[in-house]
Amino acid sequence: MKAYQEMSKEELVQEVESLKAQYKKYQDMDLHLDMSRGKPCREQLDLSMDMMDALNSEADLSCEDGTDCRNYGVLTGIDEAKVLIGDMMENNPDNIIIFGNSSLNVMYDTIARAMTHGIMGNLPWCKLDQVKFLCPVPGYDRHFSITEYFGIEMIPVAMTPEGPDMDFIEKAVAEDDAIKGIWCVPKYSNPQGYSYSDETVARFARLKPKARDFRIFWDNAYGIHHLYDDKQDYLIEILAECKKSGNPDLVYKFASTSKITFPGSGIAALATSPNNLEDIMNQMKNQTIGHDKVNQLRHVRFFGDIHGMVEHMKKHADIIRPKFEAVEEIFDAELSGLEIADWTKPNGGYFISFDGLDGTAKAIVDKAKKAGVVLTDAGSTWPYHKDPKDSNIRIAPTYPTLEDLKVAAKLFTLCVKLVSAKKLLADM
Amino acid sequence: MKAYQEMSKEELVQEVESLKAQYKKYQDMDLHLDMSRGKPCREQLDLSMDMMDALNSEADLSCEDGTDCRNYGVLTGIDEAKVLIGDMMENNPDNIIIFGNSSLNVMYDTIARAMTHGIMGNLPWCKLDQVKFLCPVPGYDRHFSITEYFGIEMIPVAMTPEGPDMDFIEKAVAEDDAIKGIWCVPKYSNPQGYSYSDETVARFARLKPKARDFRIFWDNAYGIHHLYDDKQDYLIEILAECKKSGNPDLVYKFASTSKITFPGSGIAALATSPNNLEDIMNQMKNQTIGHDKVNQLRHVRFFGDIHGMVEHMKKHADIIRPKFEAVEEIFDAELSGLEIADWTKPNGGYFISFDGLDGTAKAIVDKAKKAGVVLTDAGSTWPYHKDPKDSNIRIAPTYPTLEDLKVAAKLFTLCVKLVSAKKLLADM
Repeated sequence: MKAYQEMSKEELVQEVESLKAQYKKYQDMDLHLDMSRGKPCREQLDLSMDMMDALNSEADLSCEDGTDCRNYGVLTGIDEAKVLIGDMMENNPDNIIIFGNSSLNVMYDTIARAMTHGIMGNLPWCKLDQVKFLCPVPGYDRHFSITEYFGIEMIPVAMTPEGPDMDFIEKAVAEDDAIKGIWCVPKYSNPQGYSYSDETVARFARLKPKARDFRIFWDNAYGIHHLYDDKQDYLIEILAECKKSGNPDLVYKFASTSKITFPGSGIAALATSPNNLEDIMNQMKNQTIGHDKVNQLRHVRFFGDIHGMVEHMKKHADIIRPKFEAVEEIFDAELSGLEIADWTKPNGGYFISFDGLDGTAKAIVDKAKKAGVVLTDAGSTWPYHKDPKDSNIRIAPTYPTLEDLKVAAKLFTLCVKLVSAKKLLADM
Repeated sequence: MKAYQEMSKEELVQEVESLKAQYKKYQDMDLHLDMSRGKPCREQLDLSMDMMDALNSEADLSCEDGTDCRNYGVLTGIDEAKVLIGDMMENNPDNIIIFGNSSLNVMYDTIARAMTHGIMGNLPWCKLDQVKFLCPVPGYDRHFSITEYFGIEMIPVAMTPEGPDMDFIEKAVAEDDAIKGIWCVPKYSNPQGYSYSDETVARFARLKPKARDFRIFWDNAYGIHHLYDDKQDYLIEILAECKKSGNPDLVYKFASTSKITFPGSGIAALATSPNNLEDIMNQMKNQTIGHDKVNQLRHVRFFGDIHGMVEHMKKHADIIRPKFEAVEEIFDAELSGLEIADWTKPNGGYFISFDGLDGTAKAIVDKAKKAGVVLTDAGSTWPYHKDPKDSNIRIAPTYPTLEDLKVAAKLFTLCVKLVSAKKLLADM
């Protein structure tokens, strides 16, 4: 098909009329579809139902070291959970704390603690005039909500397929000691599905921040969330790389089993240096007696070891891979050659990042909503919900059924075309 | 037996020699007993093993409203859990948020939030020169640890069998707007097992604090934790009383199932006014997507309703009542009439509060430890671990077996006598 930009006014008018007619048909279908959040679908959740039998009334709820998981105690998590999650995160179990059900909560608490008590003896952030965070964009809205809530100024950093703009980051952290952190989703990034290159990870590890309490918030949310057996992204392990670079305390690395077993009923973890661990434990001991050890044990008994987890993730991939492929096929078929859109084709994770013409994202999301398809709000991939180009939309293909997803993706492309054609027409 | 204070020097010397010989025998027994923390014993934990079957791989993990508990969402907890915990807390389900596994964590977060963001539009506490909390003493060490961690000045308030000294509290909060809160364990208090009288609760509800962001931290940890069927303490419900008194936002009320099902794997909750709920939810939505709904559902399916929970608590009582009675019998037999000690005889909860002669608590705890019986550290029932009289010791009878407990209690009384006799001798 001819690129929209090359169409004459008449051609565009005709195209808009045709698209409107198609759009009307979708409206008549009374759709109620949701592509807004990175939620696993029912079939994915069903994969973990056997976990509900991993512990029953006949089970011995003791750890290998004899600890009764039913009682109080064990602040940082049971040993066997640290081994399992350590293998998942590619970190030594000694570097790991196991938390409750939400890694987002761990990130929030990490910042809350920095606000009130500071990091490793440095001044609490709430005592400073200004605290800033670097935010690779587009990025994860819930990260940005945390920093916004704490009044931390967010500075957007451009993303590339190799990771964030490291030239900018190196300069910024070296010059400005108000910059205390950066949000990273290093593998199968949210929303692009990009994975940081070896060079990017190495440059992160070698950062020379002016602020001694600068930390990289390394949200390894999709560490083993591959879509393909034969196309998988690999990253250098950041903690090891930091240690090697003489920057052992530079990183907090987060992960959870939320998109492995049950979101909301999984286990979350943090991997970091001994100094950071000590700093955190000095706070944690005042916050709780310990997290849910029975659920930790349940996960360990269900998976056995990392191999069980890897096999489990292949089943997830088998369910969601066709969904990603369906979206990509429909985008290709409907949008290729029109020169009105780009989108990513990730090897893992939960999202596709879509970029339309400048100034169209909000209108596309609105249009889709009016025909019954809910997308992530336009703008939400940017700090303060402000996408300066109004072009980025996060596509979350996992939750709807494949059938529904195809309808939703088709409608989405229709909205993209309609909004884009009208915009080009208006700009003429 | 003759009161120690009435003994002659010779009699005391003889008594000390006799006690030393008895103590030596205990030392030879190589004991390893723990009366330090309020932990349920194995038999109590066994009561909840059937909860592990409440959900299995065949179960429908949907709420009554159709929500799939396995997936993300439902920030404030599932409806049926709010009903169950509402009945447990004697509050309307609409006034309740269900959290994760630890009410201590909820209290910590409540204070952390007040520090960084303030309560209902008031200035964040971290912006103030001084923040103070009232602390009824003796009290719960983990409460005091939280306020100490946040640099909040703690002011001790005397406890009576009817609750804290309300004359002092009314005056203090009316005069000093730096006083932002008070720690209360209103029912079967930690460590005395006292329950606040109707008058005390009513006076709390009628407080006229100078600080608009003053809150009562009402830790209802032992709301249904009775020891007896026929001797149970009842309290006026504080939220209702506050509302009636025109002080609807004055109270945060906390509870959990930690000492009902499994400590560390239970569910915690907060009950408070709609204004406070809104304030909290505005923060929580940045902290987490939701707590563990599967575990909430597990609790609901296990208990069915509050009647199931009440029956369950009777089984707990049957296990721990003989332990409280054994301690009381041994204390009576060994210490009555010596005029060197007082102790409480609670109708519920997890503790007995013991008071020895001034200046003996630390020595008694040390003496017991050297013979293999671990007690809660002397001083830990006071803010900053400073018991000005060095007289109070918290006794936690639930965790050891009845047999071990009897040995430990006997040894404890021996240490009390030995330390007291030596002290009286030294003072002569």
